[in-house]
Parts: sequence; C-alpha cells; structure tokens
Amino acid sequence: MLHDDGLELLSEADCHDLLAKHAVGRVAVTVGGLPAVFPVNYVVVDGAIVFKTGEGTKLSAALRHAVVAFQVDEIDRLYHEGWSVLAVGTAEVVTDPDDLDPEQLPLAPWAGGTRDHLVRIRPELISGRRIVRHVDAVTPV
Amino acid sequence: MLHDDGLELLSEADCHDLLAKHAVGRVAVTVGGLPAVFPVNYVVVDGAIVFKTGEGTKLSAALRHAVVAFQVDEIDRLYHEGWSVLAVGTAEVVTDPDDLDPEQLPLAPWAGGTRDHLVRIRPELISGRRIVRHVDAVTPV
Repeated sequence: MLHDDGLELLSEADCHDLLAKHAVGRVAVTVGGLPAVFPVNYVVVDGAIVFKTGEGTKLSAALRHAVVAFQVDEIDRLYHEGWSVLAVGTAEVVTDPDDLDPEQLPLAPWAGGTRDHLVRIRPELISGRRIVRHVDAVTPV
Repeated sequence: MLHDDGLELLSEADCHDLLAKHAVGRVAVTVGGLPAVFPVNYVVVDGAIVFKTGEGTKLSAALRHAVVAFQVDEIDRLYHEGWSVLAVGTAEVVTDPDDLDPEQLPLAPWAGGTRDHLVRIRPELISGRRIVRHVDAVTPV
C-alpha cells in the first residue's frame, strides 16, 4: 500500500470506480486570471466526465479547451475518514447530439436557468487518496 | 434577490458566515502547471481561512504566495439543494507562533503524517450561490 504523508494512495482503477459512482463533483478553472471552483452534478460516459452548463456563463467560457481539474470526494466529518479523487484533462463543449445527446443522459439540471451545453472532460491524469482515521485525530486540542 | 442563471447569489456576509461554520473545504492550486484540488479541514481565524499542511508537500510548495481558490459547499444529492462559497486570496505559510500558534487552533490532523505548517488565506474576493430546488429537476430523463 503506497502512502503519501499519512494518506493512502488509491490505484487508478479505484479512482475511476469512485468517479463513476459519484454524482456531484467540483470543477476548477481559471476565470479572468483567477482560480475558481464550481460544484456540478455529472455522469461518467465512456470514462469521461460529462456535465451541463449554461451557454455564456463564466464557467462555459473558461472550459473551452482549457486544462481543468475535476475533483470528487466523500468526507465523514465525524469520523475524519474519506477519500478524494482528482482528474485532470482538457474540457470540451459537445454540441453534436450524435456524439453526446443531452436528452439521453441522466443529467437533470438541479437549478433553474438554461443549462443545455454539455461539457466533457476526458481524464488524462487521475489520482486519489484515502484519508484513514488517525488515532490522535480525535484528541481535543 | 439576485440570481445567476437559476442560482441565488449569496451576500458577502452570508458567504463569510457559511465559511466560518464549515469545517472541510477544498483548495485549488496549480501544481507543475496543472490545476489541482485538495480537500482540507480548516478553521476561520479573524476572517482568514487557516489549515495545516506538511512541509515539503506539493500542496505546501504550491501555496507559497500563490493566489488560490478555496471552496466550501454543502449539497443535498437527494433534494438537489445546497450552497457553494468560493473565496480567492493569496496563500501564506505562517511560521511565527506569535502570529498563529498551531497548538492553539482546533485543527487536529485527520490523517497521519506530519502536518505542522499553517497556511492562511485571507479572502480578497468571496462569492456564493445557493442552489434552489428546480421543479423539473426530479423529472426522470
């Protein structure tokens, strides 16, 4: 088992599994030269992360052919356990319904507004860590 | 009430309140030219985000005087409701215990390993959005 400063490193296969099972992630982009992070609901299609965004949004603009980070995690704040997976890849806006059809994806928009642009990120790098409860972690300080 | 493509915009005061009440966030940095996102447990001290990291980690290196994004959210996957707050500011590593004393902060390291470097981010920009349940969101597609 590989470790990274107390964190257990996950295999690539485990990272892909966790990514595929989750439904909400965060995309990190650069907007106007500044870093920004937005939560999105997503699905995995053929190994790629797919989510909807509105046309003309800051997020949509930032995502065009940019290298972005996509992160998912599940963290138990009570028991201080969990995992985090980070995927990095180029984002592309998919407009061809023969390639990806928004109507065929289980991606209901959570908020109102118009979010009919599909964004796809094919992970080129994927890594993950599991936070294993540390015995001293619950000691009050 | 201001809206952003179906999302309700939060006031700066609400953003600071939500940031102060939460305990786990995600820091977005650039590592080796690529974007990366790491979850951390944190506290707010005098309006600044403070968390621990290990010396010599990728995260620690990336944080030195970098402009970073820090994001917290709480999202109900069942009811498709929640909020997200994004703070942007310059990260600094604090080594002077008279400035910030790691022993005095309620920041127990969750994982093993050595995390005795304090990082502080003073938000220069803060923004937030609330996801309000959209009637059509639960329609199966």
